[in-house]
Amino acid sequence: MSFEPRNPDYQARVREIFARATFVNDVGIVLLGCGPGWVEAELELAPRHVQQDGFAHFGVQATLADHAAGAAAGTLAAPDEAVLSVEFNQSMLRPARGKWLFCRAEVLKPGRTLTRVESEVCAVDESGARQLVAKARVALATIHLRGSLYAP
Amino acid sequence: MSFEPRNPDYQARVREIFARATFVNDVGIVLLGCGPGWVEAELELAPRHVQQDGFAHFGVQATLADHAAGAAAGTLAAPDEAVLSVEFNQSMLRPARGKWLFCRAEVLKPGRTLTRVESEVCAVDESGARQLVAKARVALATIHLRGSLYAP
Amino acid sequence: MSFEPRNPDYQARVREIFARATFVNDVGIVLLGCGPGWVEAELELAPRHVQQDGFAHFGVQATLADHAAGAAAGTLAAPDEAVLSVEFNQSMLRPARGKWLFCRAEVLKPGRTLTRVESEVCAVDESGARQLVAKARVALATIHLRGSLYAP
Amino acid sequence: MSFEPRNPDYQARVREIFARATFVNDVGIVLLGCGPGWVEAELELAPRHVQQDGFAHFGVQATLADHAAGAAAGTLAAPDEAVLSVEFNQSMLRPARGKWLFCRAEVLKPGRTLTRVESEVCAVDESGARQLVAKARVALATIHLRGSLYAP
Repeated sequence: MSFEPRNPDYQARVREIFARATFVNDVGIVLLGCGPGWVEAELELAPRHVQQDGFAHFGVQATLADHAAGAAAGTLAAPDEAVLSVEFNQSMLRPARGKWLFCRAEVLKPGRTLTRVESEVCAVDESGARQLVAKARVALATIHLRGSLYAP
Repeated sequence: MSFEPRNPDYQARVREIFARATFVNDVGIVLLGCGPGWVEAELELAPRHVQQDGFAHFGVQATLADHAAGAAAGTLAAPDEAVLSVEFNQSMLRPARGKWLFCRAEVLKPGRTLTRVESEVCAVDESGARQLVAKARVALATIHLRGSLYAP
Repeated sequence: MSFEPRNPDYQARVREIFARATFVNDVGIVLLGCGPGWVEAELELAPRHVQQDGFAHFGVQATLADHAAGAAAGTLAAPDEAVLSVEFNQSMLRPARGKWLFCRAEVLKPGRTLTRVESEVCAVDESGARQLVAKARVALATIHLRGSLYAP
Repeated sequence: MSFEPRNPDYQARVREIFARATFVNDVGIVLLGCGPGWVEAELELAPRHVQQDGFAHFGVQATLADHAAGAAAGTLAAPDEAVLSVEFNQSMLRPARGKWLFCRAEVLKPGRTLTRVESEVCAVDESGARQLVAKARVALATIHLRGSLYAP
C-alpha cells in the first residue's frame, strides 16, 4: 500500500522518536531506515538481552516491535500529532536467538483516531540470513498536541 | 482460585527465573513475592525507561508483565518443565508515569501444554498509591526438559 | 469498581442494543441483566451452534463475549454516543459444551475515545454449575452521533 | 510461503471441516477454495447479520475469520490430527457493510503443537470491489485423535 505523509519532515520526526526514547537507546535498538508508512530497526543481541533459558527475552522483541510500529505510525502523523500505543498483541513463533534482531513495521490502516501497524521481528545470523521469530499488531491512538516539543 | 504446586521448591525456581534473566535485571525489575499461581514484581522508574513523550515505555511495562506472568506459570510447573511465552496481548489503559511500576501476575488457567496468566501493571506514586495502567494476558507453552539446568 | 452512568435511561439503551442486533437474536443470545459498567447475557446451546468436533463454535462464544462487552460499554455512554468494537482478543481455556453459555462483561476502564471491557464466558450444565471456558478483552471506540436513532 | 500437506486428502478434510460445523452453515458461510496452507470462504450478507447500527456484526466477521483459519491449519494437519482455536485476536479496521464478506486465511507458521494463521476479511460490493475491514491472527492447538471420525 502507498501512503502520503502529512508531515514533509516526517524523517526528522522518526529520528526524534528514536533519539528521545531513552529506553530504546538503553536496550540498543537503532533506526535503519523509513518511508511513508514503514520503519526498519535492529538490535545487536548481547548477553544482557536474554531470559532464563538463553533466548532473547520477549521484552526485547516487544520493545523493538512496538517502537518500530510507533515510528511507522509517526511517518503518517501531522506535525501537531503524537501517537501512543494503546493495544498490542504478539505471537512468538520460534525461540529467538542469533546475532541481531531485525524488525520491519508497516502501517496496515492509518486513521484519524486509531492507526494499526504490523511488525515482523526476525532473528539474523552471522551470514545475514533472517528467520521470522515474532509478529505483532499494534493499535496506536493519535494525540493532538498543543505547543508540544514536536510542534514548534 | 487456589492451585497446588507440583514442584515443592517452586519458590527457588521463581528466584532462578528472575536471577537468570539478564534482561530483567538490566531493566531493573525485582521479585517481591510469590505463591502457588501468582508472582509480584516491581521496578523503580528512572530517566532511562521512557519513550519519546516522557512516559514509561511500553517495552518496560510489557517486560514486567510478561516476566511476572512467566514466573507465575513457573510456580505451577513440574521440576522438569520450563515455560515459554507464545502469545501476549496488552491493553495500555493510561499513560504510565510515577515512581515505581508494580505488577501482579495470576494464573487464569494452568494446562498441560498451555498456561494462561493475567498481569496487571500499576503506576505507584511517592505515597504508595497505585493506579492500574496496563493489563495483559499471556499464553505460555510448557516445554519438557531433559537434563536441563532446572532438572538435576 | 463503581461507575456513574451518564445516561439515566441506560437500561433502555442496553435493551435496544440487544433488540436491534439481528445477528445476536438469530444466534439466540438473550440479555439477563445489567448495571452501570456490567451486562450479563446467555444462550441455550443447540445442535446448530457447533464446530466440526461437536463443541460450541468459537464464533458463538465470541459473538456472546463481544456483544455483552458492547452493551457493558453502552451502560456508560452518553445519550448521543454509540460504541463500536475495534480490537478483540479471546483465550479459549477449554472446549465448550453444556446446556447454556453464560457471559458476564465488566468495564475495565471507560474512556472518552476508547473503553476497555473484559468478558468471561462460562459453560453451564443442567445443574446450573458454571465452568469458565473463555476470556476476552475488547476495546470499543466511542462514536459521537448526530441525529441518530439513539439521540432524538 | 509454500507448504507440503501431510494428508493427501486434505481437500476432503477441509470440505468436512465446513460441512460438519453446523454454526458455520447456519450463518451462511461457504467454502470457496483451498490449497496447502490457505483457505478462502465467503458469506452473502443478509438483514439477519447486523449489529445495532446496521453494520455486519463483529461475531459474523470473527466466525468467518476463525473458521477459515481453522480450515487453513487443517490443510497441513496429519490425518489423525484435529486443530482447535486457542487464542484469537482481531482488529476491526472499518465498519463492515456490503453485499458479501470475503475471507482469505493463510498459515503464518505451522507447528507440532501450535499453528498460527492470519485471516483477512474484506467487504465486497455489488461490483466485486473488495475493501479490507478486519484482520485476525489465530493460534490453533493440534489435538492427536485416536479412533476419531477423521481417522478411520
